[in-house]
Amino acid sequence: MRLRSRAPRRSRSCSLADVTSAGWRLGDLSRRLGLELEGDPDLEVSGVASLEDATADQLVFARGPAFRARLLSCAARAVVAPPDLDVGTRSALRSADPSRDFFRAARLLVPEPEVEAGVHPSAVVADDARVDPSASVAAGCVLGRGVAIGPRTVLHPGVVLYDGVAIGADCVIHARCVVAAASVLGDRVVLQPGVVIGGDGFGYVGAEDGGLSRTHNVGRVWIGDDVEIGANSTVDRGTLGDTRIGRGTKIDNLVQVAHNCTVGEHCVIVAQAGIAGSTMLEEGVVLLAQAGVAGHRRIGARALVGPQAGVHKDVPPGTRILGSPQRAERVFHREMAALSRLPELLRRVRGLERARGDGDAP
Amino acid sequence: MRLRSRAPRRSRSCSLADVTSAGWRLGDLSRRLGLELEGDPDLEVSGVASLEDATADQLVFARGPAFRARLLSCAARAVVAPPDLDVGTRSALRSADPSRDFFRAARLLVPEPEVEAGVHPSAVVADDARVDPSASVAAGCVLGRGVAIGPRTVLHPGVVLYDGVAIGADCVIHARCVVAAASVLGDRVVLQPGVVIGGDGFGYVGAEDGGLSRTHNVGRVWIGDDVEIGANSTVDRGTLGDTRIGRGTKIDNLVQVAHNCTVGEHCVIVAQAGIAGSTMLEEGVVLLAQAGVAGHRRIGARALVGPQAGVHKDVPPGTRILGSPQRAERVFHREMAALSRLPELLRRVRGLERARGDGDAP
Amino acid sequence: MRLRSRAPRRSRSCSLADVTSAGWRLGDLSRRLGLELEGDPDLEVSGVASLEDATADQLVFARGPAFRARLLSCAARAVVAPPDLDVGTRSALRSADPSRDFFRAARLLVPEPEVEAGVHPSAVVADDARVDPSASVAAGCVLGRGVAIGPRTVLHPGVVLYDGVAIGADCVIHARCVVAAASVLGDRVVLQPGVVIGGDGFGYVGAEDGGLSRTHNVGRVWIGDDVEIGANSTVDRGTLGDTRIGRGTKIDNLVQVAHNCTVGEHCVIVAQAGIAGSTMLEEGVVLLAQAGVAGHRRIGARALVGPQAGVHKDVPPGTRILGSPQRAERVFHREMAALSRLPELLRRVRGLERARGDGDAP
Repeated sequence: MRLRSRAPRRSRSCSLADVTSAGWRLGDLSRRLGLELEGDPDLEVSGVASLEDATADQLVFARGPAFRARLLSCAARAVVAPPDLDVGTRSALRSADPSRDFFRAARLLVPEPEVEAGVHPSAVVADDARVDPSASVAAGCVLGRGVAIGPRTVLHPGVVLYDGVAIGADCVIHARCVVAAASVLGDRVVLQPGVVIGGDGFGYVGAEDGGLSRTHNVGRVWIGDDVEIGANSTVDRGTLGDTRIGRGTKIDNLVQVAHNCTVGEHCVIVAQAGIAGSTMLEEGVVLLAQAGVAGHRRIGARALVGPQAGVHKDVPPGTRILGSPQRAERVFHREMAALSRLPELLRRVRGLERARGDGDAP
Repeated sequence: MRLRSRAPRRSRSCSLADVTSAGWRLGDLSRRLGLELEGDPDLEVSGVASLEDATADQLVFARGPAFRARLLSCAARAVVAPPDLDVGTRSALRSADPSRDFFRAARLLVPEPEVEAGVHPSAVVADDARVDPSASVAAGCVLGRGVAIGPRTVLHPGVVLYDGVAIGADCVIHARCVVAAASVLGDRVVLQPGVVIGGDGFGYVGAEDGGLSRTHNVGRVWIGDDVEIGANSTVDRGTLGDTRIGRGTKIDNLVQVAHNCTVGEHCVIVAQAGIAGSTMLEEGVVLLAQAGVAGHRRIGARALVGPQAGVHKDVPPGTRILGSPQRAERVFHREMAALSRLPELLRRVRGLERARGDGDAP
Repeated sequence: MRLRSRAPRRSRSCSLADVTSAGWRLGDLSRRLGLELEGDPDLEVSGVASLEDATADQLVFARGPAFRARLLSCAARAVVAPPDLDVGTRSALRSADPSRDFFRAARLLVPEPEVEAGVHPSAVVADDARVDPSASVAAGCVLGRGVAIGPRTVLHPGVVLYDGVAIGADCVIHARCVVAAASVLGDRVVLQPGVVIGGDGFGYVGAEDGGLSRTHNVGRVWIGDDVEIGANSTVDRGTLGDTRIGRGTKIDNLVQVAHNCTVGEHCVIVAQAGIAGSTMLEEGVVLLAQAGVAGHRRIGARALVGPQAGVHKDVPPGTRILGSPQRAERVFHREMAALSRLPELLRRVRGLERARGDGDAP
């Protein structure tokens, strides 16, 4: 791997964190985060990094004893660590949940760039659109008739909102997202770049000339609070009723959610998975990468659908599904283990047939 | 499922259909659609809904006897129904094809928003581009040299058309689509948001330094009349000849059609399916979701390729293919059924071996 | 297939190549390319085409004897061919690598449209962005604070570059790409339309309310020289360290590369494949279409992962993997062959059991 040795000339030798970090004294950080500090309150940290990449003034974290060796050979002088973990001579912010508190610290040490409130002059906003004065509408955005944008919501450049779209407070809509079909987004919704919400569903009826004619869609997409959707994913509008994404659900990149699906609260849908029309995911369902679910199915609460699995039947709550076509996890593993022994089994059966004198066996 | 109880404060309590519906007397509607009316010609309907969600003044539909119970407990007072279906006390528009006629009615009851003809002042249009005066070019569109736009075609905001692109009449190109490579679109083509037509194909030849060098692409994408393509799907330009999508074909979201493919007329390609370079789909082929077809293959007319299937060999016309790697439908089902009995089979063979005295069997 | 007979009226009867070709004398072409010419140096060629579609004045190529019959029945009067191939009465540019030299010729015969240097007045460029005077920034682009664009790089319309993004020399960034997270692109990088670089990764930690809270991302995406990425593909930024795409790697359409992945040099990733977080591909790895690789895995140098394969374990260098779940190529083929014999095997075992007098066998 010569990759690392061939950085282009423009590459900075330090991480983004160093460049933009605010610099905090550990004592101030411990007070702000409500964490106990063991060590030097005057030590200043000015960024975050992994155990492998950290320099002396960057904060790291260690989740537990498994990280101990890497921590002790790491250059960082400050760490977020569980109460009982040996951190050597380092200063430690003690935490019952080091990952969470490390990322809370990271938000302070490497703050998001400030976004100016107001509407950029190059944005095109319909006369009757209502944009909260604390919201930010960047260059090249287009907002249709009747659009409503809540407080502190940020639209990055090139976002297109069709007529009637309503977006709540504290949302971040990244560059080049499209929201159509008078869809409604709750508060703290994050759309990564290129997301399309409210495209027409893939529903057709036979046309008089023997071809296909699109159904006429009047439904919207309804997206709950704290939903996040990954880059270039698509969520189609409902045909009659709405397509619904429940509060707290997180969706990765290049995911397809078809018309009239109902995705429950706190579901997790990993990259390139797809859900066909009118399917319901109850709360807490996990679809792993590249999984597919057929239309008009119901996936029970907290069920887990494995990577590349193909679901064509309802899935009971709390179960784990693998394979295409779908099987219960235990059945799938048993079948795959058996399949690996099948070539040998063919030979063994041939042996039995020969022993019986079946000279004509294949 | 607490989803429905947690609608954000901004959520409207009624459907989009209610908000924008035009309101029609049933008598007028029956005359306009050419359907026989049984019931009250003065009853006014002002929207469409599913049987579950309908209010009294919304039109519903019932395809046949299977819908009877849901229809009879539904609040709607007007229904599109087959001639012989019991509709209770409701007024009925009688139809031999209730789905189709219901959506015809829906187009009247919930019309698409009016689009103003003309070019938005923020659009950037090359001097020699020809835009029909009845066409609409929205804010932020960019039209390259020699672009031609036919009558009544609508370009939503942010569409980018590279030099030489030609689009026919009555097309709808949704927000942020890109059409490149001097591609040609027929009439009544619909591109959902984010579609990319005419990107360079994934073709490389060995370069002199041992790496890969892209082939030089001179082909276009040619898209027939009445083709519809779903959000964020991609169709690559041909290398030498063109990539072709036949008349009437419907393509769902996040589908990949590679360079030099020929997709026949009236094909249906469901979400996240992909077709590798130079493959031909004859007319009426159906690719279900997440299916993949290798390059330089031919899928015969009216063949059906199942969800997540992996096609690496030609498929004869009219056949049904499942599985990855591909198998004929009947073979696939037989093999999957046999696989589910394989763990038990292993035990049975062991039993036979033991009975034979094979103490050393595994 | 009626497709070809139904071209819309606007369709040109000739290929794009004819329209824009520059016209070259064969003698000049042979000198420019450094190839030996057998035939008429004054013959003028004005485009390129496949053997099937070529007219008399278009250049074709034939890789070897397998192309001889098609070449001899082709209308073209000039061909790029290996030294020993019979080309009939045609003029031949003799080449040891006809594909490569044909596409070198194609670049001269059908040159890319000229792009004007400079920043389009409708582009929105931050005061402190540095755009090389020889670079081209098209209509509707938005460049954030501190952006740097190298010599001769072309940004097509609607590209959005977030704060701090650095792009090298001779890159082509197609319409509507988004590059975020202060990502760094080397020289000669090509992004097809709709690519998203630097979206937030799909990483979450448990939040205090029991839901999920996104990790705070400070990493970038680092893209080496000569990398090309297909339409609507997505590459997420790193959480702490960077996501890295090595020099010379080619990525097709609709591919997902998750946060903190390291993709080595000269890898090939075909359409709709996906790589989960923190996985490393060493140099020269090939992932075929719709393959998926789990997170935190390592794929050894020059390994090949087959179409739709599902990789959940490390892959040794130089090996070939098929199937989901993954198996070595030889094992996969053996198992699939055995599976096809399984229904018959069930019958044979039943026969053995009957012969033994097992009347109660299933």
